[in-house]
Amino acid sequence: MSAPPTIDTVKELGRRYSNWGRWGESDELGTLNHLTPENVVEAAGLVRTGRIVAMGLPIDDAGPQSGAGALGRFNPIHLMIRDGADVAAGTMIRDFYGGDDRHLRGTDDVLIMPLQSGTQWDALAHIFFEGKMYNGYGPDQVSSKGALKNDITGGCDRMIGRGVLLDVPAARGVPWLEPGYAITSEDLEECERRQGVAAGQGDFVLVRTGQMAQVRDRGSWGDYAGGPAPGLGLDAVPWVADREIAALATDTWGMEVRPNETPDTNQPLHIIFLVHMGLWVGEIFDLEPLALACAEEQRWEFLFSGPPLRISRAVGSPLTPVAVF
Amino acid sequence: MSAPPTIDTVKELGRRYSNWGRWGESDELGTLNHLTPENVVEAAGLVRTGRIVAMGLPIDDAGPQSGAGALGRFNPIHLMIRDGADVAAGTMIRDFYGGDDRHLRGTDDVLIMPLQSGTQWDALAHIFFEGKMYNGYGPDQVSSKGALKNDITGGCDRMIGRGVLLDVPAARGVPWLEPGYAITSEDLEECERRQGVAAGQGDFVLVRTGQMAQVRDRGSWGDYAGGPAPGLGLDAVPWVADREIAALATDTWGMEVRPNETPDTNQPLHIIFLVHMGLWVGEIFDLEPLALACAEEQRWEFLFSGPPLRISRAVGSPLTPVAVF
Amino acid sequence: MSAPPTIDTVKELGRRYSNWGRWGESDELGTLNHLTPENVVEAAGLVRTGRIVAMGLPIDDAGPQSGAGALGRFNPIHLMIRDGADVAAGTMIRDFYGGDDRHLRGTDDVLIMPLQSGTQWDALAHIFFEGKMYNGYGPDQVSSKGALKNDITGGCDRMIGRGVLLDVPAARGVPWLEPGYAITSEDLEECERRQGVAAGQGDFVLVRTGQMAQVRDRGSWGDYAGGPAPGLGLDAVPWVADREIAALATDTWGMEVRPNETPDTNQPLHIIFLVHMGLWVGEIFDLEPLALACAEEQRWEFLFSGPPLRISRAVGSPLTPVAVF
Amino acid sequence: MSAPPTIDTVKELGRRYSNWGRWGESDELGTLNHLTPENVVEAAGLVRTGRIVAMGLPIDDAGPQSGAGALGRFNPIHLMIRDGADVAAGTMIRDFYGGDDRHLRGTDDVLIMPLQSGTQWDALAHIFFEGKMYNGYGPDQVSSKGALKNDITGGCDRMIGRGVLLDVPAARGVPWLEPGYAITSEDLEECERRQGVAAGQGDFVLVRTGQMAQVRDRGSWGDYAGGPAPGLGLDAVPWVADREIAALATDTWGMEVRPNETPDTNQPLHIIFLVHMGLWVGEIFDLEPLALACAEEQRWEFLFSGPPLRISRAVGSPLTPVAVF
Repeated sequence: MSAPPTIDTVKELGRRYSNWGRWGESDELGTLNHLTPENVVEAAGLVRTGRIVAMGLPIDDAGPQSGAGALGRFNPIHLMIRDGADVAAGTMIRDFYGGDDRHLRGTDDVLIMPLQSGTQWDALAHIFFEGKMYNGYGPDQVSSKGALKNDITGGCDRMIGRGVLLDVPAARGVPWLEPGYAITSEDLEECERRQGVAAGQGDFVLVRTGQMAQVRDRGSWGDYAGGPAPGLGLDAVPWVADREIAALATDTWGMEVRPNETPDTNQPLHIIFLVHMGLWVGEIFDLEPLALACAEEQRWEFLFSGPPLRISRAVGSPLTPVAVF
Repeated sequence: MSAPPTIDTVKELGRRYSNWGRWGESDELGTLNHLTPENVVEAAGLVRTGRIVAMGLPIDDAGPQSGAGALGRFNPIHLMIRDGADVAAGTMIRDFYGGDDRHLRGTDDVLIMPLQSGTQWDALAHIFFEGKMYNGYGPDQVSSKGALKNDITGGCDRMIGRGVLLDVPAARGVPWLEPGYAITSEDLEECERRQGVAAGQGDFVLVRTGQMAQVRDRGSWGDYAGGPAPGLGLDAVPWVADREIAALATDTWGMEVRPNETPDTNQPLHIIFLVHMGLWVGEIFDLEPLALACAEEQRWEFLFSGPPLRISRAVGSPLTPVAVF
Repeated sequence: MSAPPTIDTVKELGRRYSNWGRWGESDELGTLNHLTPENVVEAAGLVRTGRIVAMGLPIDDAGPQSGAGALGRFNPIHLMIRDGADVAAGTMIRDFYGGDDRHLRGTDDVLIMPLQSGTQWDALAHIFFEGKMYNGYGPDQVSSKGALKNDITGGCDRMIGRGVLLDVPAARGVPWLEPGYAITSEDLEECERRQGVAAGQGDFVLVRTGQMAQVRDRGSWGDYAGGPAPGLGLDAVPWVADREIAALATDTWGMEVRPNETPDTNQPLHIIFLVHMGLWVGEIFDLEPLALACAEEQRWEFLFSGPPLRISRAVGSPLTPVAVF
Repeated sequence: MSAPPTIDTVKELGRRYSNWGRWGESDELGTLNHLTPENVVEAAGLVRTGRIVAMGLPIDDAGPQSGAGALGRFNPIHLMIRDGADVAAGTMIRDFYGGDDRHLRGTDDVLIMPLQSGTQWDALAHIFFEGKMYNGYGPDQVSSKGALKNDITGGCDRMIGRGVLLDVPAARGVPWLEPGYAITSEDLEECERRQGVAAGQGDFVLVRTGQMAQVRDRGSWGDYAGGPAPGLGLDAVPWVADREIAALATDTWGMEVRPNETPDTNQPLHIIFLVHMGLWVGEIFDLEPLALACAEEQRWEFLFSGPPLRISRAVGSPLTPVAVF
């Protein structure tokens, strides 16, 4: 029996697949550079039935976060500034229109949310390793004022392309992968064979673990946020790197298998993917409706559209990713 | 000289173009019903160069809102939960990882924002008239807990289709329309003629007034939020209704001309469009880069993608709309 | 065995002890009217050793709220705007002082909190019964813009007086009252006898149930917020009303016994106290250090100071109540 | 004409009046150590008429902050979770009580506020100089998670004592001091002579500049937040230090004169007072009603009560300070 992987394994994979400098010293886009206008045109060509499937989880207080915790992530808080009850009670004119009734009544609301509390893109500024984030930028580039480098806004006009769903539990004949299952390169290739699709350069690859099906089956989030989970393992790193994909997203809290394979290192794939490769990573995508649609359409490629919000200096963003068949 | 239009004009237009019941008594989608899968397929066919243009304004404290005001809309507040400075100061392990250094360092952030403070879709639950919102739902359907009917989530998987930019100032040979300019049906038709494009059923129509160019020219938002503005006038209502478009968005705070043409009625087109027609309305879209791209590409139609966030019970949502050429 | 009390019991007690109109039709102060300047002077005379005891629970994410829940109360969220790590990382000058180093470095923070999530005063606008709050004001007086009548600010310059702790578990020889225990008038009188103190006109009466001792003993809040709890019962109403006290506070989430004695009515004492009597009610006061101090000082009366924050239109407020011996 | 003071002046004054180590190496209370139980007893003895005056500014969106700005301070945002309009509209039972009408109706609200946006105490963790805060603690003691040392909670049970108002404009026969006026030791002594009161050990000294009277006179906050202001000058430092007061508060945004007397140093008194002396500083106290009351009572000493909220790790706190005559 071999020793478990360590931070040295992580460093070696990081070095091997590093994209620092690949697109210039001032690059902040990382693997989104793999996406070309030709990719976009080809992706649009995949639209044949006009079916649209959204992958965004509801943004509300029934979300997956279990509490403030050390990381400080809580479920979104939605509050009304003014509402229909004010219309019914006759208070709107007095309190919101200065007593002047000009026939209109309106409603407004406010949202308070950690940007990584639900369906989300990580910005490349989300992860540091040895004091550096993607392309070598230092920690002083992300102060209390937010990220000067590698913030989320770089993705706003580059998140349209070919989407590919790799449905791992379907390939393995199970409803979902169990927590702790580490997805391998071979798993991903088996999905490709079974589904008759090959992920490649500039693609948005969505890897389904089925953990949300499990959550729904048991009727509660449980320790979905931060607890044991299926997800990509170290063995999948070469596959992800070699395919030159634009971005990768899964249906779990943290994309990679938990407990992590590296006893000494937390979230090793985040270090390799975000810091070294500059890979854009999506999390908590709801891939259940998409998996159903793919099975019905009998194809696992589609036009993907998923720009983040253009939040200045943000290190993450909620979004509503959509697949168009 | 004729008398100015009044609430009676608004009511008459509302009656004439009402879509209540058109798609069933329980409909909450309104004009998004005009969008068909065929529209989506055709729209994807417009993608030829792969150029992507985003229309989302930066979401930050330099936004267009001028203060809390009666409506309570303020600019977004972005705060870091943990950041790179904590990495540099060596405080992250102690304060966020329980003292256990497992090599990873992460950053997180929180956003507090009125959902209609920037680039946004109005939900159909945003406007009431005579105690009703679209399709006859009453004010008790939008309490302090949010909207039970007509909330924003209906748009999540229906906001992909053909986009058409109508560049009114370009058609009139000016850099921007002046505040108070009421766009007419003839203006819109002139844009169509000049641009060689016709808006039609299921389209996402983006009407540029150029007000953001004016804001940038003078270097400040001024009274952009709620002050005088160019925008659609009552004369444009038949055009908008007859074309059976899916949604309409502009680059101003309130879509319609301000001061309103109706001295006795605030935002009359909101009453006609949102309440009676069930038309999805977008506001504060940044159409400047899009206008430039259209002129360069010499075409004013494209694939539009702009789903709102799936915020449960919300009456509006920020988004990053994108056009793909 | 007699039938349990019902809403009729509540209504009868409400009628009997109603203070509507007692201090004028426009009164918004309720029982704070019982407090006279003479009471304040006498209360100051109780200060003999200068010992100060604070009763405010820490305001942070380890608070008693268990989640957003139907009432939408969550634990306070504290975020830094800028901090010492920015000083250490050298990012403060760049990001917060416009690049101009004038030697000073500062830190700032933001708090997001439901006003009744911890140690708090209820405003008289907090409770409605049969469409009315204290003194007959209607529900239109508390819109989405907040309370026009009976808001919290009335208490700002009237919350200094004689404090009296009634330590019920001490009188009963137990460390804490068990959940479901309904405190009676006789219990309160027994405390007075045992402690050699009598609560009277204008007093701030603090009733200890010991539930926080129980929470600390078991090491978790459990269902402290909204679950079973000891607290005042219907039997205590005459005592509370007859003594003409200024305000009443306890160490539990909801002041009164839970499950409530009235199967058909939620929080009946809130209806009687806040709506009919206009009694100011404090909740989640940490009375453990105070009980210890009283026992050590062998007196259960002291100067009480506990003004709410002056939050315009608020229906509750956090505070740091203090006792001075 | 002599050269203006510089950072060297600030350093010299800091060295001379430093209290680092005076109360032990682990002290976090600074000048609150000057307050003794005897002070508290004597202060209570000042209560003779029972008149209570509150000094807290309304906490709402009409506050003094002019915008997010570089420091990120905005006016408080108050939102209702549920309100009387929900009672009137009949939506409360459905949306907040799970459809179960048990007679009670309640309201709730949320506050979002920068802790130094209104009437406030600065914690000693608010200011750093040369990488240190009071008593030599380093910047790593205030991370994105808040202050481990010198946070606001130390004040919770030590903010009761003798209050002394020094009404500088009254002593000078003007309604208010003009912006830029630097209060001297002689000014403070003149107030004492005129008012027949002497500030001393353990006192809470409130220095009125009258700037709020000026604000009210002109009807707008203008540049009150951060702009030119009257306030304490460097000349007043020896007076403040020698009197061994417990805390100092003024009615301006920043306590000290602005523009600062030191062209090279921002807020020099913050460096001397908070960092070197460990002096608790209050800002934006509304001293107008207090000045009126003092003149009417013809005494300028009273019982002061002003504990901060017990916000864990906070670097500031709102409060409602009160004076009792």
